[in-house]
Parts: sequence; structure tokens; C-alpha cells
Amino acid sequence: MMGMIAELIAVGTELLMGQISNTNAQYISKRLAELGINVYFHTVVGDNPERLNNTIKTALERSDIVITTGGLGPTKDDLTKETIARAMNRKLVLYEDILKRIEDFFVKRHRVMYKNNEKQAYLPEGCTVIPNSNGTAPGCIVEEAGKTVIMLPGPPKEMIPMFEDVVFPYLKKSAGVVLVSKMLKIFGIGESEMETRIMDLVDMQNNPTIAPYVSMSDITVRVTARCGSKDEAEEMLRPVVNRIRSRLGDLVYSEEGETLEQVVSKLLHEKGLVMSTAESCTGGQLAARIISLPGASKIFERGFVTYSNTAKIEELEVSEQTLTKYGAVSRETALEMLNGLMKKTKSHVHVAITGIAGPDGGTPEKPVGLVYIAASLHNQLVCRSYELMGNRERIQNDACLRALDIVRRLILKLEVPGKH
Amino acid sequence: MMGMIAELIAVGTELLMGQISNTNAQYISKRLAELGINVYFHTVVGDNPERLNNTIKTALERSDIVITTGGLGPTKDDLTKETIARAMNRKLVLYEDILKRIEDFFVKRHRVMYKNNEKQAYLPEGCTVIPNSNGTAPGCIVEEAGKTVIMLPGPPKEMIPMFEDVVFPYLKKSAGVVLVSKMLKIFGIGESEMETRIMDLVDMQNNPTIAPYVSMSDITVRVTARCGSKDEAEEMLRPVVNRIRSRLGDLVYSEEGETLEQVVSKLLHEKGLVMSTAESCTGGQLAARIISLPGASKIFERGFVTYSNTAKIEELEVSEQTLTKYGAVSRETALEMLNGLMKKTKSHVHVAITGIAGPDGGTPEKPVGLVYIAASLHNQLVCRSYELMGNRERIQNDACLRALDIVRRLILKLEVPGKH
Repeated sequence: MMGMIAELIAVGTELLMGQISNTNAQYISKRLAELGINVYFHTVVGDNPERLNNTIKTALERSDIVITTGGLGPTKDDLTKETIARAMNRKLVLYEDILKRIEDFFVKRHRVMYKNNEKQAYLPEGCTVIPNSNGTAPGCIVEEAGKTVIMLPGPPKEMIPMFEDVVFPYLKKSAGVVLVSKMLKIFGIGESEMETRIMDLVDMQNNPTIAPYVSMSDITVRVTARCGSKDEAEEMLRPVVNRIRSRLGDLVYSEEGETLEQVVSKLLHEKGLVMSTAESCTGGQLAARIISLPGASKIFERGFVTYSNTAKIEELEVSEQTLTKYGAVSRETALEMLNGLMKKTKSHVHVAITGIAGPDGGTPEKPVGLVYIAASLHNQLVCRSYELMGNRERIQNDACLRALDIVRRLILKLEVPGKH
Repeated sequence: MMGMIAELIAVGTELLMGQISNTNAQYISKRLAELGINVYFHTVVGDNPERLNNTIKTALERSDIVITTGGLGPTKDDLTKETIARAMNRKLVLYEDILKRIEDFFVKRHRVMYKNNEKQAYLPEGCTVIPNSNGTAPGCIVEEAGKTVIMLPGPPKEMIPMFEDVVFPYLKKSAGVVLVSKMLKIFGIGESEMETRIMDLVDMQNNPTIAPYVSMSDITVRVTARCGSKDEAEEMLRPVVNRIRSRLGDLVYSEEGETLEQVVSKLLHEKGLVMSTAESCTGGQLAARIISLPGASKIFERGFVTYSNTAKIEELEVSEQTLTKYGAVSRETALEMLNGLMKKTKSHVHVAITGIAGPDGGTPEKPVGLVYIAASLHNQLVCRSYELMGNRERIQNDACLRALDIVRRLILKLEVPGKH
């Protein structure tokens, strides 16, 4: 089944009305990708006989495997089985054992079974039945002239167990391939700079493939090898990953798709280090990100959210003079916050952040987005400023990521970027 | 445009690989449904010239409005614009003002703009440009022979503001109807209870429509009236909103779709109140949520993240005996944290949270999810416990929402639910 092409069809007007989201498509796609089966299309179509029929016919022409979700219910709006059977020239026949299962389903739940539920026991002649343990609609696999059609019910609660129990093993047996990925996470450069640095590698590669994805604040580069065994795949990945790393250096902070807080948390755990924080413009978000991860009690001691000047003075011994002379957003205040924090705790890593998250409070000299981050670990102490862009949410987010990256760099003894 | 047929095309191999979910389709479909525009198909197609071309051609044949998301990036894999321009016989031309915007985007971020970003300033000749405030890829609207093609970038952070600012008003104008919605936000009950309480109203209603949406931690009920004028719509909405409110009482915390932190922040501003926090299991997230909103300096004074016992003792004067005898997660500790916090600040509202966020640390007597929240305002002081469900993220999130709801109830002098 190497190189086989699959296509997913979700049937249901509620999807087209936006009442529910087609989460099944993502779920099934991810699993098919693991098997090296190429998915070329997802289609969502309503409970309309003509459009459903056209969609299924087109899919059978251009794809080897067609997987449908939805439209297997008991009502006359549910047309998937009927339409596919017609397109594949199969009769629908009564499966007695399935009828029995459906009857039992109602008996067990003390519910009355209606006549229209019988419709669900009719399936294409000669198909492989996929029993449904969580509902009344069975699924099925139909093979015909080199094409495979797999029908599954729409509710993920029913679909997922049926996919895992029957469909995935069925496809895996035919596929006989292994896919292994590395997810390189990159922080500190933009999309185009990343592309300039590695685009020739992306273009050159076929197996492993290299695919960059850009989100709000970081970049992921997925490197995927497809072959016969896991070991072989790993061997194919290593040189490609190394080549990318040689271009991007310490901008790469993970090979396993982790977040920056996961990487920092792991480093703190590994080195037996404990961290404390003093935050102004980020409002506790830096602490919350570290503490969002399990095991935080071993690596996080305490945090201060000194949002007011009074709090900076009372909790962190920032001097009134400093606040008056240099302002709450200044290198001097950041360093005094850090010093106050260091006096208060016996932690190893200390981080202080002060800045202007906006939308108000900016001046020509100190624009919205100006952030100072001071941090220390053992005999290393740095203070850097950044001019961050975007709205309040984005500035707070980026300030936290900058701070996390500084902690990572202090632990790994790497150079810390930013304005001195 | 009433009775018009629309079709959504999402472009991106990462969707077909299951790396991300096509949430844009649901978002746009829901908004089009409100305008009475019928969506007949969603299609996801990869970054492949031939398949993309076929998909777009088919869509232009069978639909009046085609909306694409994705494929507008700077790389040569991004083909949406080029393919659509060819299908519609339009040249791509350089839009100088867009080029300027993109250049500014990089200058502001102190980032180098690369040659390939220039590609994003090329758009179909004679199109309506949709500026992008959160990224470099502009969108556009192209009209030709009764067909409308609307191109939007893939990341929801960029797509949604562009859709709301330009596309929705554009479509609404053509549709010739006025839509007015109230977004009732509900906190404190589950989906089935909400359904039991209002489902008869949902089923009864046609215009205004009532649509409940359930997310991880709260429920939104959107009530939408469609008619000729805004005043008329408002008049239709009021009795329906009142009927829902009479069923749900003070569980409804907003009619305007606000978050709980927005509602609390607004109440604090209105009443001239200032808040301070002491957090253990939520790790600063409560403070960060309040401070995520503009104007926080007027309503938030300081916060403590006393994650370790030492921090609870040193910062909040929690007694060692209390910690030994009752444990860090106990009513007694929560109240001592609150008292310590009240001594430290001159704020009006004080909140202290301690709990077990898991996955470890639970016992039969104190399971994961047990959270104590103590809070005070003037002469009101409450302490409640909750047994929250789910993983660490969910427990931390729900604990913050519970705390915010308590603050709302203290300010509005409403009863506070939870175990005494």
C-alpha cells in the first residue's frame, strides 16, 4: 500500500453549518500519516443525495482509499451507506448478527428500539463489518477493483474506538511502512530568515521530508523519514537534522516538538535547579507557564507579581529614587527587582521582567513593547532589553518566551541575545 | 445574496497530515449561516499545484462564493493566489502600499525582510485588498462574472480579525439583512444541565435563533435575530434573552460574550476596587488573566505565587503548624494565605488559592482536583472548596474561573456556590 492515496469524506449538514468541527479528519489524517498513506483531500458534504453521490464518485476516481465519517444513523437523512453501495454496485443486505447487537444495545439501556434502527443492520453485501461498542451504527470496509471504502460513524466517541480496533490494524497490515519524525523547534528568528537559512535543504529533500510551520511566536520544522523499520528511519533522520542544526545553531531548542517552558522545566529538573520570578508587565504568566507543567514543585519556589510601584518597593526593595529617576520600565529597575528577588529566596535561577505591554503607557523614548529582562544563575548575571511588537497579548507572550529562552541559555551557558 | 451558495477551501499539507485542525472552516461556516448563506462543501487540499487548481475550478463551477484559507505565505509552496489568479484570468500585480506595510512590519520588529516576502505584496489586479494586522500575508476579494473569491491567510489569529473587519461586513452588505446577536456567557453548570433548563426554548425558536456552544470551561448561548433593521432586531432579542435569564439566573455573567476576567475587570474598574492575589496551585495564572487586560494598573496591586511551603510561611505568614497539621491544601491554609495577603496590601479584593493540580500529589482524602479558594471584599469573607475534574491544565483553568466567579459574586453581593 506504499504510495497509496487516501481521501476523507465527512457527511453532515451540521458540519457545514459550523455547529460542530470536523475533528475526525485531523484524527484519521494523523494516523494515516504514521502509516505513510498520503491523504490528498478532506471533503465535508451535507446530507444531500446528489452532492453526496458526486463527492463519492469523484473520490473513487482519484483515490485508492476512501474513508467516510457520518451519515450512518437511523434516519432517512442518513445516506452514506446507500450512496456508496450504489456507486460500488453492491446490494445492501441484512446482517442478522448486527441486528441482534443493535437490539441488545437498546435492551441494555432500557430503551425502546424503533423500526428505523433496523436500517442500521443493512450493510453492503460481502463487506467486513466493524462493530460499534458505543452506539448503534456499525461501520464497514468494502473492497472492489483495487479501491477500498471504509465507512465509520460521525461521533468521535464511536468512530475512534472502531478506527483503532479495526481500521488502523487493517491499514497497517497492508502498508508495511514506518514513519518517524523529528520536530525541531526554533526561537529567535522570523519565518523568512529561517527560510533563507534552510530553504535549499527543504527543496533538496524528499525522504526524509523537511516541512517548516510557523506559529505566532515560534517555528517548527518537521523532518519525517519513511521506510521499512524504525531504526532505519532514525538513521536517515540524523544527518538531515544535524545539517539543519548546523545552519540554525542554538536557535534550535528542541528536537521533540516541545514548548520552551517544557525545555526549561526539563533542564531545571535535570540540573537540580530551582527558579523564582519577579514579574511586572507579564503579570504572573512566566510563573504560570512553568507551573503549568507536572512536577513544578521541584523546580519552582516562588514568584512575585509586583505590578504597582509600591509592590516593587515593598516586596523587592526597589528604591523609590530608582523608580523616580529611571522609571519602572528601566534597566535599573529590572536589576533592582532581580536583586530583591535574590535576597528573598534560595533559588538558583532568578528572573525579573518589567516592560510596557500597552496599549497605553508608551512614550517616544519608551514605546509600548519595550521590555527589560534581568536574570541570574550562579555567577552569570544578564540584563537585556527588547522592543517587542504586536498587541498586549503578544507582547506579554513574547516577553515570557524571551525570559524562558534566557533561562535556557544561562543553564546551557550560551550567549544571550538582546540589547545590552 | 440570499440563497447564495458558498464553499470553503483550506489549503495546506499540514492539515492533510493531521498536524493542525481546520478550525477556520467551522468559524467561517457559523458566521455564513448567520447571514443565511448556504455552505455546501468544505475541502482541504495540499500545497500541490494541480490538485489545488482542480479544486478551485470545481468550486468556481458549482458555487457563488469561494472562500480560501491558507497558502498565502512567502514561500514557493504557497500557491493559492497564483492558482486562483490563473483560474480567474487575472494578472498578479504589485500593490505598493501593501509592500510598504510588509516592509514596516519587519522594520518595527527589527527583523530583516527577505526577497521572498515581496511576493506577498502581489495580488490579483483590481481586487479589494484585506490588510493583515497580525502577519505579513494580506488577503483579498476578487469578483468576476457573478462569482466572488475571498482569500484569507491560514493562521486563525490572522484570519479571524480580517474576516470580522472586512469579509463579514462585505458579505452582510450584499446579503441585505441585519443580524444582531447577544452572547450569553454561563459559568457554573454543565452542558446537560444547561440543556435541561433551556432546550425547550432552543427547539421552539426560529428567529431569533438560540445556539448553545460548549467549550472546555464555559458555555455560550448565542441568540441571533435576523431582520431589516438593528432596532427591530434588538426588540426581538430582548424577550428571548430575558426568558433564558429567568431560567439560568445569576449563572449568566455576560450578555456580550465577554470572558469572566473581562467581566471582573470591568466590575473592579466601575466600582474603583483594587485586587491582590495569593496563588499556589494556579501558579500566577489568576493574576496573569487579570493583567492580560488593558488598564490593569488601576485594578491590580500585587500577586504572590507561593508555590513552596517556605514561600507561604515567609511571604504570607502561614504558620508551620497549620501546614503540618492540616496540609498546604486545606481550608486553614487558604484562610491564612488570605490573611497574610490582606496584611500585606491595601487592596479591596483579596483572593487566595491552594489546591492539588496533579497529576501527582493526590490522596484518598485529598484527591487531585481538590481546591480551596478564600476571598474577601470589605466585610464579606468566604472560603469554599471544589473538587475539580480533568488534567492539570483543566484544573488550573477551572480554579482560576472559580476564583474569578467568586470575585464577581462578592462585588455583586450574590451567593457564592461551593462547599463551605
